[in-house]
Amino acid sequence: MELWYTEYQTENLGFTVRIKETLYTGRSQFQEIAVVDSYEFGRMLVLDGVFQTSIVDEYIYHEMIAHVPLCVHPNPKTVLVIGGGDGGTIREVVKHESVEVAEMVEIDGTVVEVCKKYLPEISVALNENHPKLRLTIGDGIKHMQEVENKYDVIIVDCSDPIGPGEGLFTHAFYQNVHKALKADGLFVQQTESPFYHQELIKRLQTDISSLFPITRLYLANIPIYPSGLHCFTIGSKQYDPAAVDISRIPEIADTRYYNRDIQKSCFSLPNFVRELLK
Amino acid sequence: MELWYTEYQTENLGFTVRIKETLYTGRSQFQEIAVVDSYEFGRMLVLDGVFQTSIVDEYIYHEMIAHVPLCVHPNPKTVLVIGGGDGGTIREVVKHESVEVAEMVEIDGTVVEVCKKYLPEISVALNENHPKLRLTIGDGIKHMQEVENKYDVIIVDCSDPIGPGEGLFTHAFYQNVHKALKADGLFVQQTESPFYHQELIKRLQTDISSLFPITRLYLANIPIYPSGLHCFTIGSKQYDPAAVDISRIPEIADTRYYNRDIQKSCFSLPNFVRELLK
Repeated sequence: MELWYTEYQTENLGFTVRIKETLYTGRSQFQEIAVVDSYEFGRMLVLDGVFQTSIVDEYIYHEMIAHVPLCVHPNPKTVLVIGGGDGGTIREVVKHESVEVAEMVEIDGTVVEVCKKYLPEISVALNENHPKLRLTIGDGIKHMQEVENKYDVIIVDCSDPIGPGEGLFTHAFYQNVHKALKADGLFVQQTESPFYHQELIKRLQTDISSLFPITRLYLANIPIYPSGLHCFTIGSKQYDPAAVDISRIPEIADTRYYNRDIQKSCFSLPNFVRELLK
Repeated sequence: MELWYTEYQTENLGFTVRIKETLYTGRSQFQEIAVVDSYEFGRMLVLDGVFQTSIVDEYIYHEMIAHVPLCVHPNPKTVLVIGGGDGGTIREVVKHESVEVAEMVEIDGTVVEVCKKYLPEISVALNENHPKLRLTIGDGIKHMQEVENKYDVIIVDCSDPIGPGEGLFTHAFYQNVHKALKADGLFVQQTESPFYHQELIKRLQTDISSLFPITRLYLANIPIYPSGLHCFTIGSKQYDPAAVDISRIPEIADTRYYNRDIQKSCFSLPNFVRELLK
């Protein structure tokens, strides 16, 4: 018997993956959680029916959401990850020597427990309880309301803007992110596919640039996400991502996608993406 | 009734598209040809069951296979396209003022006729019989055996390395391409996905660099192709694609993906692709 799981990435487009076996299914307070083992991508985390990450391609998303903003900031010491329950982003953040404290606020403790058990390659920093890590199971939106002038870099590693991630794509949230950042701080958020989520990207661009003097979008190739092209948006108070001197970027251990050239070239946008941001 | 067509991009991965209607199906001397109208990508050309191009995303492939090599050469006058039966590549080639003659050798006349009828936005230069165009229905491999020291740029716009495209991925073919190019000529070929076709890419890199002093790979994001990340390989006798002075690149009309920044950044390779080419 052949098992296939199809994610409908849009109403009219499916991404269908042959499955060896289902390792876990459950429902937390917030969402449906599954871990499947696939032939093409190895073990995959599925939340509310949407592929979140896979053993085979996870490095791309996690390297690109962490290293790009951390290398825009010249000396990030205190970093916050909102979401990122699989631990992959934290695993990359703690590689930076300058980082002293890597806080993580994830709303769904069940996702953390499931990933620690079934995706240990990704959740390694959680499993080892890395000395830089401060993990809180809690509401990132509420946390943002409560802190001020604290972080050098905030990484919003969220799922799609439906379900538990919805409140992380609002103007009110970005106001609190702005308040929580130091005077030269910056934040990044995953902002979906420039092919399929153009209205969302435009709205976020407007919201973020109404609060931050510098707003930049960058791109990465992630096979399991819709269109294979994924974007991230940076809001920055002082440092311009496009003006980074890449010669001063520190060596980062064991990256399989990210390098200094990519730090620069990921901000080169095709014309259709430039048009979106006008 | 909902109609869906699934292309199995690998043994374990499908790309499934909701179809409005089938506009054409037929079998030529060389392959099965279909044109379907899809909700997500508009009209799509399907050869031997594989999506070749779509009205919605075709500009990316055609701009990137044409403009990148044509802008590496400082003054391309005589250009050959092998394959490219839909006409999209020729449409882009003739935009270059320096180009005097744009030859095209396509093996399958039925593909040309079907595209002229069902994909006129793509085949426009064929439909108008553009003054720079010299179209031959014939075997590109044989044509390469017969010419010498003739072309500034050769563009190999082929389908996958199975079926009629197979002979275009061989060392013998590249020897003839080398012979057909002028002393400062260069060629480009579409070389599939760096995620799913690593052995092919490695072999071609070896074959091409055994003949050409400069071999470079570049990337573009094409949603309907496997992984969404597609690569192209350039073999060049003299001009290094990585050393192009982008300030001297001419304006090219109506590009929706390509621009001067992309000309440069498309050669920035993620670490896993660099590893492949070692």
